[in-house]
Amino acid sequence: MQRTVRFLPDDVSISAEAGENLLDVAARSGMYIPASCGGDGVCGKCKIKVLQGEVSLSQQGLVSDQERSEGYSLACKTTIVSDLTIEVPVRSKVAGRDLKRKPKTTRAIPARSLDSLVGSWEIDPPVEKRFLTIDPPSIEDNVPDMQRLMRAIKKGCYECAEPTYDHPELLRTLPFVLREGNWQVTVILLRGKRAEEPDRIIGIEPGDTTGRFYGMALDIGTTTLGGVLIDLNTGKVVAEASVYNSQIGYGEDVISRVIYSQRPGGLKALQEKVVYSINQIISTICASASIVANDINYIMAAGNTIMSHLLLGLDPKFIREAPYVPICNQMPLTRAAAIGIDAHPSMRLFLYASVASYVGGDIVSGVHACQMYKSPALTLFIDIGTNGEIVVGNNDWMICSACSAGPAFEGGGIKYGMRASSGAIENFHIDPLTLEPMIVTIEHTKPRGICGSGLISIVAELLEAGVIDQQGKFDRSLQHARIREGVDNYEYVLAWAQDTLIGEDLVITEVDLDNLMRAKGAMFGGYVTLLESAGMTFADLERVVLAGNFGAYIDLERAISIGLLPDIDRERFFYIGNASLLGAQISLTDHKRFRERTMVSSLMTNMELSESPQFMNHYMASLFLPHTNMELFPTVAQRLAEI
Amino acid sequence: MQRTVRFLPDDVSISAEAGENLLDVAARSGMYIPASCGGDGVCGKCKIKVLQGEVSLSQQGLVSDQERSEGYSLACKTTIVSDLTIEVPVRSKVAGRDLKRKPKTTRAIPARSLDSLVGSWEIDPPVEKRFLTIDPPSIEDNVPDMQRLMRAIKKGCYECAEPTYDHPELLRTLPFVLREGNWQVTVILLRGKRAEEPDRIIGIEPGDTTGRFYGMALDIGTTTLGGVLIDLNTGKVVAEASVYNSQIGYGEDVISRVIYSQRPGGLKALQEKVVYSINQIISTICASASIVANDINYIMAAGNTIMSHLLLGLDPKFIREAPYVPICNQMPLTRAAAIGIDAHPSMRLFLYASVASYVGGDIVSGVHACQMYKSPALTLFIDIGTNGEIVVGNNDWMICSACSAGPAFEGGGIKYGMRASSGAIENFHIDPLTLEPMIVTIEHTKPRGICGSGLISIVAELLEAGVIDQQGKFDRSLQHARIREGVDNYEYVLAWAQDTLIGEDLVITEVDLDNLMRAKGAMFGGYVTLLESAGMTFADLERVVLAGNFGAYIDLERAISIGLLPDIDRERFFYIGNASLLGAQISLTDHKRFRERTMVSSLMTNMELSESPQFMNHYMASLFLPHTNMELFPTVAQRLAEI
Repeated sequence: MQRTVRFLPDDVSISAEAGENLLDVAARSGMYIPASCGGDGVCGKCKIKVLQGEVSLSQQGLVSDQERSEGYSLACKTTIVSDLTIEVPVRSKVAGRDLKRKPKTTRAIPARSLDSLVGSWEIDPPVEKRFLTIDPPSIEDNVPDMQRLMRAIKKGCYECAEPTYDHPELLRTLPFVLREGNWQVTVILLRGKRAEEPDRIIGIEPGDTTGRFYGMALDIGTTTLGGVLIDLNTGKVVAEASVYNSQIGYGEDVISRVIYSQRPGGLKALQEKVVYSINQIISTICASASIVANDINYIMAAGNTIMSHLLLGLDPKFIREAPYVPICNQMPLTRAAAIGIDAHPSMRLFLYASVASYVGGDIVSGVHACQMYKSPALTLFIDIGTNGEIVVGNNDWMICSACSAGPAFEGGGIKYGMRASSGAIENFHIDPLTLEPMIVTIEHTKPRGICGSGLISIVAELLEAGVIDQQGKFDRSLQHARIREGVDNYEYVLAWAQDTLIGEDLVITEVDLDNLMRAKGAMFGGYVTLLESAGMTFADLERVVLAGNFGAYIDLERAISIGLLPDIDRERFFYIGNASLLGAQISLTDHKRFRERTMVSSLMTNMELSESPQFMNHYMASLFLPHTNMELFPTVAQRLAEI
Repeated sequence: MQRTVRFLPDDVSISAEAGENLLDVAARSGMYIPASCGGDGVCGKCKIKVLQGEVSLSQQGLVSDQERSEGYSLACKTTIVSDLTIEVPVRSKVAGRDLKRKPKTTRAIPARSLDSLVGSWEIDPPVEKRFLTIDPPSIEDNVPDMQRLMRAIKKGCYECAEPTYDHPELLRTLPFVLREGNWQVTVILLRGKRAEEPDRIIGIEPGDTTGRFYGMALDIGTTTLGGVLIDLNTGKVVAEASVYNSQIGYGEDVISRVIYSQRPGGLKALQEKVVYSINQIISTICASASIVANDINYIMAAGNTIMSHLLLGLDPKFIREAPYVPICNQMPLTRAAAIGIDAHPSMRLFLYASVASYVGGDIVSGVHACQMYKSPALTLFIDIGTNGEIVVGNNDWMICSACSAGPAFEGGGIKYGMRASSGAIENFHIDPLTLEPMIVTIEHTKPRGICGSGLISIVAELLEAGVIDQQGKFDRSLQHARIREGVDNYEYVLAWAQDTLIGEDLVITEVDLDNLMRAKGAMFGGYVTLLESAGMTFADLERVVLAGNFGAYIDLERAISIGLLPDIDRERFFYIGNASLLGAQISLTDHKRFRERTMVSSLMTNMELSESPQFMNHYMASLFLPHTNMELFPTVAQRLAEI
């Protein structure tokens, strides 16, 4: 239910959902309200006054009865019920300054744009369940069980090729299944990879089981695995689950996993761990959909090249060493049970092909989902993570690359960096006059670190408030308790010790800023290099597609402010969510879309940025906020000039 | 070295090899020499006189010095050196009678005919080893190892389809093999089953290993397994081995094996046993050829339907129950290691397709070897064993069937029946006047039983000597110590207790004769039924091909005498040996011949004789020696009339 929240005295209105937290909505709208405890309700600073409308309150101990009766409440413990008019008390507001900040609109765009990008797809999966009534054998007609089954499958289709089968288990159980079902059975057919290839029988069940027909789309991320169970009869999602990749204990990023894989037994351990995580997802979605693992008839998965190697037990050793050679890009179609996945022995696990060592099947699946390979519109596809991956192109060509962005956006290399989980600062504003912070954490606990979206917010806000300069250095002339020379270097105190979960001052340092600049510089340098190699500039870009979980939380304006995203018309940005999972889901549901995937990877040409002098130049030029060449960032230049 | 042996006073000459045993040669020529101890040198009855030529003697203790100086020796301990003239002493000879017997010529025919039947084949195997020099990866060209390998395989062949691969182990070892070989490797390719199918990479080895390239042809018999190792570079046989099927402990015939398979763990035990036997063969031929099991790049095997099922772990339950349905005829191409065979993990085991439950891949392989499907000449293909299998047809059509002949020819249902091994009576003559026997055993020991060829000899001789009549009944009017009423019924004493290894009188009984007649009657009834169903008679038959190990020892004239084989021009009979093994061997060496095999099985139509009233009639008519309708056996009729 959409509600409108109007903040006075600035008169900023924003759309929000009934049930949303008021502090979150204020932060999203760019409305500064002081808040030190992340939304935990204990600092008592985020008091606002409800002038009009209905709210639901909790934990307002720090608000006096008197204040309450006047309509005051803690924004962080106030939930939106109806349309609201809110007064932000003057003491937490400096008139005239915040108005310059436009309300953030990142969330509004993707909702509108997703469909136009990915289009619709048919419910016509690459697997098929078919109920068959078979003539029982007689002495006049005693052809073997398998031939009898084939005959029933081909019935009425004389030009059809004979289906194949290759799993010995199928043959072993066949006679018993046929007789148990009294010659009525359901076969599970895997369609040929190409139209002219014969179907393949991958399963047979007694009786009519066509009603139970499920597939799982799976995104195998370095950090997180996400699974979606699809009812292949309806195309509907019936269950979802996500778990941390259990490999994390062996290293947070792919490189540490590769290093671990070189230990004795390391490769096996890593394979077992990721299989364990997949099995966790299967058990969760099966429980939630009240089915058993055997009811899942296909897994369509996507993962980066190293994850794909580790899952299949392929040694990724040479991916890490120049010239960075994977064993294969095209991953063999695998029987899931053969690698330990809890699945019917005949069930197939498909993995999207990679393009190169650092442009994996997850990116191919994402490109496949957004269909940039079908449109003449020049599109920039961005997946920001430990390794940022970039694809530029259209229906004629695509160039892709991985940028060694480093793990800053996942909390790596940042003193108090952390993954996006409970207690991570995810949104941040600064009062330009008092330089006091407004911090909002995930799950509204006291803060204990900074996640990627928080980091972008913090840096953008510090920059626009003049606390740091365009080189990422603190203004040492500022006299403020929160700005100080810390152990490492200059730093800004985001939260004092008593307001945190970690019992120490939570700061952002100049070293953090350096790392952030390198991360975003690598991404931006990548865009420019790829575009340039095709003789293009940002002006030619018709669309920028943000993929990945992280993309969901990026504040477009701020990401542009720090130079992570190009400063182009905001309407050209699209957020596609977990594109890798979406691609797998589409492939699972529509075999025609599935067959297109070979076109996707064949159109994608990898460029090794690490060896490109052009990239090095663009990267160096990007180590600035937002960039040394401010002509590339006209709106940011204007905003900074207005400070 | 061919020698001529001339027997006087009958003046019968026969070709023999230098080194052959004189008693064997005499028996083969139809020359009666009394012999009770099977050739053991202990009865002393087979004394002959060497009139001319050189012989080599052993163990002549029963010949006096006087006799020796006159040229006498025991035929069973006399070895042919040069051309010989031999006098058979008159006391063991009744003039005028033996002359009617023509020398047996069975052995002479196959030698002449084998080539004309099977033709020649090319050395162009369905597997290929190819040495490749691969460009090492560089930063400009860092495609994955597998893609790099594919590129090298396809080099210079732009229209070639990309090879496939499916074995995970191949991918796992690929990067290390490439680097160990310093980018020089040998790939093992499996050609597509059809010309248009892409090749499949089944192995890769560092360096140039094209010189070590072997395949094994394998005949998986119910009783015996035979293996032949072929050097696939030359097509030459480099080693051979045969072992008893270790499943024998679980039953002598396929039906007892099926029954055993239904016990808990029975199927698994039977699979393990046959795999054990295959591994025995592999270890023997590897030792003899000084190679390792991993050097064998392909196994081409043939076995009957039940053996094929058991080897693959497929439950043969429904083969035994009407309507006799196997799980499959087309056996899936299997990785040998997956079922426990000592082989490289990627090595394929091919099994010839069956036609029906009782017409298996061994018969298809045999038909494939003799190429009756290529000739317009109407051919009868016969494999005599526990289940006699028959195929009739030509290049347009083939009908086949199994006859439940029973195990008489393998010693089953015969009081002193045994398999063809040491001590088995394999040849037999009777003195038509004295009715005293001449028995020759395998390995010339004292007799301990009767094998199939011996049984045919005995029955034919007893018939032609008038000891039994055409109904298989003893002439009760004959007064002779050897012809008596035994425990079961009338019997003939082949050897007295003291002359045997078993310490009791070794006899053939009327019950044995009944069983023999049923066995041969089922075969003959089968020929007639199949021919009749195609509107043909024996007169239309241009060729009769005898396959199987047993075929090698059949005495053509005697087999016709008892009605096991049709009474047609002897020149039309061909002996092809172990046709099943030969077919596998040809397929292994020449992929074009291999590809023809699908035509073979598709041309073969199975007929279930057990349910055919026509068959029952023909079978009943065949329960006679040789047949109730003597017009079918003109030469036998003439011979019997001359007695």
